[in-house]
Amino acid sequence: MRHLLLIMILSFALSGTGIATVSDSLKYVNATEFPLIGKGFADTQNRYERLPVRLKGKTRPAVWSLSKNCAGLAIRFRTNSPVIGAKWELTGNVTMSHFAPTGVKGLDLYCLKNGKWQFVNVARPSGKTNKTVIINHMEGTDMEYMLYLPLYDGLVNLEIGVDSTATIGNPQVDSPRKDKPVVFYGTSTTQGGCASRAGMSYPNLLSRMLDRQIINLGFSGNGQLDLEVAEVMAEIDASCFVIDCISNVTEEQMNEKYIRFLEIIREKRPDVPVLLVENNHFPHMYFDQTIFALVQQKNETLKRIYAEQKKKGDSNIYYLKSDKLIGNDFEPTVDGAHLTDLGFLRMAENMYPVIRKLINSTLTD
Amino acid sequence: MRHLLLIMILSFALSGTGIATVSDSLKYVNATEFPLIGKGFADTQNRYERLPVRLKGKTRPAVWSLSKNCAGLAIRFRTNSPVIGAKWELTGNVTMSHFAPTGVKGLDLYCLKNGKWQFVNVARPSGKTNKTVIINHMEGTDMEYMLYLPLYDGLVNLEIGVDSTATIGNPQVDSPRKDKPVVFYGTSTTQGGCASRAGMSYPNLLSRMLDRQIINLGFSGNGQLDLEVAEVMAEIDASCFVIDCISNVTEEQMNEKYIRFLEIIREKRPDVPVLLVENNHFPHMYFDQTIFALVQQKNETLKRIYAEQKKKGDSNIYYLKSDKLIGNDFEPTVDGAHLTDLGFLRMAENMYPVIRKLINSTLTD
Repeated sequence: MRHLLLIMILSFALSGTGIATVSDSLKYVNATEFPLIGKGFADTQNRYERLPVRLKGKTRPAVWSLSKNCAGLAIRFRTNSPVIGAKWELTGNVTMSHFAPTGVKGLDLYCLKNGKWQFVNVARPSGKTNKTVIINHMEGTDMEYMLYLPLYDGLVNLEIGVDSTATIGNPQVDSPRKDKPVVFYGTSTTQGGCASRAGMSYPNLLSRMLDRQIINLGFSGNGQLDLEVAEVMAEIDASCFVIDCISNVTEEQMNEKYIRFLEIIREKRPDVPVLLVENNHFPHMYFDQTIFALVQQKNETLKRIYAEQKKKGDSNIYYLKSDKLIGNDFEPTVDGAHLTDLGFLRMAENMYPVIRKLINSTLTD
Repeated sequence: MRHLLLIMILSFALSGTGIATVSDSLKYVNATEFPLIGKGFADTQNRYERLPVRLKGKTRPAVWSLSKNCAGLAIRFRTNSPVIGAKWELTGNVTMSHFAPTGVKGLDLYCLKNGKWQFVNVARPSGKTNKTVIINHMEGTDMEYMLYLPLYDGLVNLEIGVDSTATIGNPQVDSPRKDKPVVFYGTSTTQGGCASRAGMSYPNLLSRMLDRQIINLGFSGNGQLDLEVAEVMAEIDASCFVIDCISNVTEEQMNEKYIRFLEIIREKRPDVPVLLVENNHFPHMYFDQTIFALVQQKNETLKRIYAEQKKKGDSNIYYLKSDKLIGNDFEPTVDGAHLTDLGFLRMAENMYPVIRKLINSTLTD
C-alpha cells in the first residue's frame, strides 16, 4: 500500500512536466551562449556565482559559500520553439524542510507577452543532475524568455532544450533593462527563502515590476554587514541600494558596523539612494515575546542609525518601515519568519512605489 | 566548502524551531486525548484517516491510500503552556519536488486570539519520526489551539508537548463550529497541494473564515467521481457540498459519472446546497494550447451538466466560474496547476461569500 502511495505521489509530482521521451528529443544549447542577467561582478570564479573571486578567502566562508547560490541570476534568450526544456547540474542538491525543491534548486521560466513578463512554468528538480520539459504545445512563434536560476543552490552546468527544428538565440529586447541595476543586500528573505519558485522572490518580483535588473546579494543567515561586501557593492553603478539585513545581525553588530557599511558605499557612491529596510514584523513574534522584543529593539536601532547618517549630511538615505510590508493577517510566512509567495508578493507590491521613486530621482540627475 | 554550506543551510532550516533540549524537557500528551476535527466518518481503520473502513477493498486502491493522508484534520486543545512542541510519526515520510516538506508532512499551529484563528508557527518535519518545539516564550495564559495535521502524509502517532508544569486539556470554545460541516470533494488542490503549511490549503482557510468545520475529501490525482465515495459523502449531515474535481477527470468520465455522482448525493440529501466548481484557469494553459483546450472543454461540459441537473428540478445546485478565482496575474501556482499559499488565499477569499450564502440558506431552513 505504501508502494502504491509512492507511485501515486510520484505521478502527482510529475504531472505537467512532460514525458521523458520529449525531453530526450530536444536540441540542447549551453546557456553560456546567452546573456546572464542579475550579475553584479564580471570576475567571478565560475559563471553562475555572485561575488568576485577577489573575496575568496577574504570574506567569511559562509558568505563565500552562499555566493555560489544563483539567487537573482537569470538567462535571457529568444526562441520560436513550441517546446522548452532544460538540463542542469547542481553544486549542492540542497534539501530544506520548509522550502519547496522547485524554489531551492528548480528553474523558473517567464515569457515577455504584451510587454510584460508572464509566468510560463517551472522546471522541477529530481536530483543533482536534472532533465525536464518545462512547457510544451506552444504556438511556436518567436518570443523572448527569461529563465530564473536556483535560489538556494549553485549550478555546475545549464543547457536549454528546444525542438530540433527551432531557432534559439540572443534576446532582441532589453528587458529587464540593464542600465543601473537595483542592488539588494540582505538575508535569507533577500536571497528568496522560501519562495515556491525563483520568480517569486521579492527582488525578482521587483525586477519585473520595475523592468530593471537587480543584483541579489542576499546571504542566508549571513547578511551580517560584512564590510568587504560593502566594498564590492560600492563598485556597482547602481540606481539604488536596498539594505535589508537586520534580521541577521544583533543590535551589537548593528552598532558596530552599520554606519561603517554605509560610509563605505558613500565613499564611492555619494549620491545613489540607499534604502534601509526594517526587520519584518514576524507573525510568530505576536506569540514569542523574546522575538517580539528583539525585532522592536533592532528596528529602533535602525531608526537611530538612519537619523545619525542623515544628520551627518547624507541626503540620499531613506527608511522603510516594515509594519505594513507583508500585510496584517499573519499568514504570509511558512514559519513565522520566512516569506511564502504570498508574503513576497505583498512585500514587492509595497516596496515598488518606494523604489520606483528613488530610481526616478537618480535617472533625472 | 560543500560541508560548510550544508551546515549553514541546516542552521537556516532550523532557525526558530527551538533547540533540542527544550523539546526534550516537555511533557508529552497523546493527541488521542483531544478532539480531532474535520473528520467525516467515525468508523475509520485508524484515527487519522478520512474514509470509513467499509470502503477498504471497495474503492480504488489509490483513493483508499490517499484517504490515509490527514488533509483537513486538526487537533483542538487548550493550554496555558508558554511553550508548545510536538512528536509525530509519519506513515510515508513523503517527498515531493514542488511542495515544501512543512506542507506535505509538517504540523501547523493556530491560536484563537480576539475571536479569530491566528497563525502561531509550523512544526518542521525532519524524518519519519519527528520532535520539535513549535513556539516558545509565550505569556503562559490559557488559550485555545488548533493543530493542523499533514496534508499529504499519514500519521502513526501524534503527541503534543507542553511545559512540565502547564495544564493541557480539551477546548472550551466550539470553533470552528462542529454543526453541519462543509464537505469538499476533489483533487490535489482540494487536498492542499502545494500549500507551504497545512493551514493554508483553501478548505482549511475557508474553515477559519466561515468558523465552521470542513471535511476534506480531496484525493490527489484521484478526484475521479468514484460513486462509492459519493455514497459515503451523502451520509454526512453537511451544510454544503463543494465538488471541485474536474481537473482529475476526462470529459468522458464527466459524461459517464458526474450526474450519477450528484444523484447519489441527492438521494440522501435532496435539499443541501451543492456547489460545482470549474477547473481553475491554469496559468500555464496560456502557453500550452493542449491544456488550454482541455480546460475550456471540461468547463463547458460542467456547465452543461449543471444545466441538466437544474432542469431535472434540482433547485439547490450552484455553479462557480473559475475565471477570477485565483486572480489574473498568472503568479499563484508553483507549476501552472498547483496553487501556492498565494493562490489558495485568493481562492478561499473568492469562494467565501459564495459558500457563506449557501450555508446561511441551509441554516434558515
